[in-house]
Amino acid sequence: MGHKIKVGVIGAGRIGKIHASNIIKNFADVEVKAVADINADTIRDWAAELGIQHVYADYKKVIEDQDIDAVIICSSTDTHSQITIEAAQAGKHIFCEKPIDYDIDRIHQALEAVNVAGVKFQVGFNRRFDHNFKKVRELIQKGSIGDVQIVKVISRDPTPPPAEYVKVSGGMFLDMTIHDFDMVRYLTGSEVIEVYANAAVLVDKAIGEAGDVDTALISLKFANGAIGMIDNCRQAVYGYDQRVEILGTKGSISVANDTPTTVIVSTERFVSSDKPKYFFLERYMESFEAELKAFFNCIVNDTDPIVTGIDGLKPVLIGLAAKQSYQKGTPIRL
Amino acid sequence: MGHKIKVGVIGAGRIGKIHASNIIKNFADVEVKAVADINADTIRDWAAELGIQHVYADYKKVIEDQDIDAVIICSSTDTHSQITIEAAQAGKHIFCEKPIDYDIDRIHQALEAVNVAGVKFQVGFNRRFDHNFKKVRELIQKGSIGDVQIVKVISRDPTPPPAEYVKVSGGMFLDMTIHDFDMVRYLTGSEVIEVYANAAVLVDKAIGEAGDVDTALISLKFANGAIGMIDNCRQAVYGYDQRVEILGTKGSISVANDTPTTVIVSTERFVSSDKPKYFFLERYMESFEAELKAFFNCIVNDTDPIVTGIDGLKPVLIGLAAKQSYQKGTPIRL
Amino acid sequence: MGHKIKVGVIGAGRIGKIHASNIIKNFADVEVKAVADINADTIRDWAAELGIQHVYADYKKVIEDQDIDAVIICSSTDTHSQITIEAAQAGKHIFCEKPIDYDIDRIHQALEAVNVAGVKFQVGFNRRFDHNFKKVRELIQKGSIGDVQIVKVISRDPTPPPAEYVKVSGGMFLDMTIHDFDMVRYLTGSEVIEVYANAAVLVDKAIGEAGDVDTALISLKFANGAIGMIDNCRQAVYGYDQRVEILGTKGSISVANDTPTTVIVSTERFVSSDKPKYFFLERYMESFEAELKAFFNCIVNDTDPIVTGIDGLKPVLIGLAAKQSYQKGTPIRL
Amino acid sequence: MGHKIKVGVIGAGRIGKIHASNIIKNFADVEVKAVADINADTIRDWAAELGIQHVYADYKKVIEDQDIDAVIICSSTDTHSQITIEAAQAGKHIFCEKPIDYDIDRIHQALEAVNVAGVKFQVGFNRRFDHNFKKVRELIQKGSIGDVQIVKVISRDPTPPPAEYVKVSGGMFLDMTIHDFDMVRYLTGSEVIEVYANAAVLVDKAIGEAGDVDTALISLKFANGAIGMIDNCRQAVYGYDQRVEILGTKGSISVANDTPTTVIVSTERFVSSDKPKYFFLERYMESFEAELKAFFNCIVNDTDPIVTGIDGLKPVLIGLAAKQSYQKGTPIRL
Repeated sequence: MGHKIKVGVIGAGRIGKIHASNIIKNFADVEVKAVADINADTIRDWAAELGIQHVYADYKKVIEDQDIDAVIICSSTDTHSQITIEAAQAGKHIFCEKPIDYDIDRIHQALEAVNVAGVKFQVGFNRRFDHNFKKVRELIQKGSIGDVQIVKVISRDPTPPPAEYVKVSGGMFLDMTIHDFDMVRYLTGSEVIEVYANAAVLVDKAIGEAGDVDTALISLKFANGAIGMIDNCRQAVYGYDQRVEILGTKGSISVANDTPTTVIVSTERFVSSDKPKYFFLERYMESFEAELKAFFNCIVNDTDPIVTGIDGLKPVLIGLAAKQSYQKGTPIRL
Repeated sequence: MGHKIKVGVIGAGRIGKIHASNIIKNFADVEVKAVADINADTIRDWAAELGIQHVYADYKKVIEDQDIDAVIICSSTDTHSQITIEAAQAGKHIFCEKPIDYDIDRIHQALEAVNVAGVKFQVGFNRRFDHNFKKVRELIQKGSIGDVQIVKVISRDPTPPPAEYVKVSGGMFLDMTIHDFDMVRYLTGSEVIEVYANAAVLVDKAIGEAGDVDTALISLKFANGAIGMIDNCRQAVYGYDQRVEILGTKGSISVANDTPTTVIVSTERFVSSDKPKYFFLERYMESFEAELKAFFNCIVNDTDPIVTGIDGLKPVLIGLAAKQSYQKGTPIRL
Repeated sequence: MGHKIKVGVIGAGRIGKIHASNIIKNFADVEVKAVADINADTIRDWAAELGIQHVYADYKKVIEDQDIDAVIICSSTDTHSQITIEAAQAGKHIFCEKPIDYDIDRIHQALEAVNVAGVKFQVGFNRRFDHNFKKVRELIQKGSIGDVQIVKVISRDPTPPPAEYVKVSGGMFLDMTIHDFDMVRYLTGSEVIEVYANAAVLVDKAIGEAGDVDTALISLKFANGAIGMIDNCRQAVYGYDQRVEILGTKGSISVANDTPTTVIVSTERFVSSDKPKYFFLERYMESFEAELKAFFNCIVNDTDPIVTGIDGLKPVLIGLAAKQSYQKGTPIRL
Repeated sequence: MGHKIKVGVIGAGRIGKIHASNIIKNFADVEVKAVADINADTIRDWAAELGIQHVYADYKKVIEDQDIDAVIICSSTDTHSQITIEAAQAGKHIFCEKPIDYDIDRIHQALEAVNVAGVKFQVGFNRRFDHNFKKVRELIQKGSIGDVQIVKVISRDPTPPPAEYVKVSGGMFLDMTIHDFDMVRYLTGSEVIEVYANAAVLVDKAIGEAGDVDTALISLKFANGAIGMIDNCRQAVYGYDQRVEILGTKGSISVANDTPTTVIVSTERFVSSDKPKYFFLERYMESFEAELKAFFNCIVNDTDPIVTGIDGLKPVLIGLAAKQSYQKGTPIRL
């Protein structure tokens, strides 16, 4: 590719800022030409410091800029599918934060638009790019543990969100477990065909009053015959717990938490080591860079993204089924 | 107690021999006066070597011996409840291998007989006496991790049993998971009120043809609001996998596998450490001694056993519910 | 061997009692016929409980008993060589607690007597029989890590002895490091040819006033070209620290401490695990049984002991050299 | 500080390039204005890509540029002291790669020039800025383990350098152990007063023929009474081994190796985990950024560097003493 890829970042909240700054620091061949945010004024200083030329309040300005090759969609979830459709129609490659939408029809419309336009479309399931989980996937694909029998994901947050948040987020299965639904698909290479959500409110009553759960063990059946389980909690006081464990016919693989240091202190009372890295920014920072690298590679080499539109759709379908399972108290087929 | 406790061991298969020999080696205040086995001739040499005076083919001889204070029932499962009833009526204290029976009515009859006779009755859930799991229970009871939210047990065997075995054993939920049902009750101190078995045949087709499963993730709800999961597989090629993990409001507890050594070898290819201790004899040998010690203490000090008749009954009830859940594909309330 | 091996235990302090009781519990083919202790009266109850027939104040009674095949010498160190000589002359096989003596001449006399009599002689370096260290040795001998380059032993006690003790014990290098001198010989299969003791009084001034050190890093050179280091401290507040680490041309081996349980507790403050097993009784209990088993096997099968007279002599020589090195501040050739 | 700090990088070999690129990526307030390298032509493309304006063959051009605030000296060791002197006289702040020089007189002259000029001078002991070792230092300084008694550093390379290299590097004690001499000073906060080098040629005979050793256990005494040991080997086939372990009166601290992932694979043969991160670039990459950050902070805030000129001098003195100790076979006082 003879010239720099020019991108526009749409939505400059926390994750939008991370992506913009990662691009500027790490990708010499990519230029962040513009950033759009409904609160444009609040980000002008930040953009100036990073040397971003254009700051817009209206994302359509980004889409209309014919010089821009790709957009990074980091706006609020309810705008993802609409912006995706417009960007696709404008011929832009799209990196879209997860989830694409909570509405299955709108996801289908967005994917259809992407399909028609023939642009690259990658969903922000960054954990696929994590050093630990990527290696698990590689080992499974190499056949190191034979056929997968059991896949388990532990994913617990250090602190619960405010109850207000769960009212608009779609609930735990859609705002949190969605990453884990993606992870089990990624690791097994197989589709979830049944889900049963054993869930409860054990952390914060206000979350229950807002109609959601905060603790869950979600049972899964896969198309390839394997079974699985996702363990979620909105609060693990010892920190962000991100592990997987796979049993196969020839062995098992497990992933422990990353820690800030490997220091162990032994005293008269006990032997103590580090808690896990604090939260997703600390734990997954490298994966945010890696997913963008993969996205730009797709554009440059005209290859398929590692996280496709279908990969964006499926976890939402599983999440909705998990919600239904919890409400009805029975397993739900997909 | 002024004199030695005199015991009769009924059933001298593998576990009966272990108990007899453990008593002789470790309990100076206990005497194994007699042993009964339907194949009496095959155990005479073994008994002579241990200095056991009487070897009978008929267990009734043990029960009729008024000099005997207690019986250790290690015969085949289908005889446990009947022998329990007779031993109780003869006023003997009873240590009974698990399960008491697969028939709930017969269990009730046995427990009733024990109750009427006022004898001590302890069921052989030896894992309660394991150094690791005992400490987990103590920490939970001390409140070290607050209220229990999630309890998980991993229990996988190194090699599957022959398909013939599962036809008579009651199936995986009753011959294997039964220990784990006991464990979750022991650790949480709460009753299982609902069970959902996500299970499959992924190890040995012959087991499936014999009407059983060999791999399962069993979802649980507890009376105290906690949720739980048991992970079973008839074959983990890396060895006997025996772990638990508890999440509570103030922290988590996990137990790793015991290993033969702590040796780590680092080479150009990798860093390798020991597999878990091979199987239940290696892993739980100390607990077999500890459970008998507890049993004899109950007799001497006239205290309640750590594993009661109810503790023998409940796991069978949960196991039957798990079986039903698997067959119907829905959660079952207890 | 058609009959039981009959042994006499000489010296029934802590370790003598452990050996006697281990024999009675675990070796059906061995009988503890007699025990001798200068405070015979204080051990009569204990002996009666174990069913030991004869209790003597004078060890010569044991040696004169022609029915006794072997003696277990657990008396005070200054009597070891004399009793060894007498027992050898009486044709008894000998298991002798370490060290044989602090006086090199007396050790030579004892070994000479053993040699002339042609009896089995095993020194109580029990750590050679430890599951961890035995496996390290096996791996080295198999060539798993190629040629040994560096051997390191960490050996620290949980609490220091009273200063009174070090006045009579020969000092740290002879009462404590002696085990580690044996360990490095055992692991490398090579002789120490030079020793340099970097030592200090950092735990208890009274130990310094008694003429000894309490903390040391002892540098070693081996005949096969390898180099080594022993790390000793009389006090590690976190517990009994017993590790080794070997570097070879094809890899490294390390041994971590054994712990009472594998329980890990994670809380808001930290992740904590068990301290090492408390002290040598907890840590090495199985090795005390294993060394006796090996001793009796030598007798029955007429094979060479795993710990020979030379193995008893060498660590004393190295210990004396270490002492000299510390006093002179230079390396000492052996 | 109203303007960007302008730096010139002198010497653009591997480490010079790393520093230049780290500055450009991570320090928005710092500009790499010029780079000098005796092979200027070979670095022009690299410099252009990074947007560095000036490329010189002669480092004096950098020093003469009055616009430049600071120099990063990454040229060959024999030029460090001379360039330091010239840069100091030109009033430039100096970041100098280790070692300052192998000649003590020239180090003193360089430090004197720095002193007279009053410029900031930081030596490139990057490991002080490593997340693991920094935390060890903090814990020691907080008193978490009481008074330090024993300090141990393990520092082994994955592959040996060519024998040619050791002829010009000053030898292992000066090119490799020098980092560890700095580390023990950093961790203990105390000076080494005696050194004894137990060393051998066990990796590559050619290294021995070139007059150097490749394997060493270096015994240390500290001014505060503590003792220590550095374990070096030019080749650890399992990878770059970088650990420390400290024993104090109230506890111990240990640091394990960082690994690429936390993945553990368990199979029928063994349980295997990652080898350490491959070599110093992988292991210490973050520390290279952190040391520069600290250096620029010193300039901006006019504070003292974390690694001073004395910190640059002392490890060379210890290294020379270690060499002498090895040659004479005795401990050397400093």
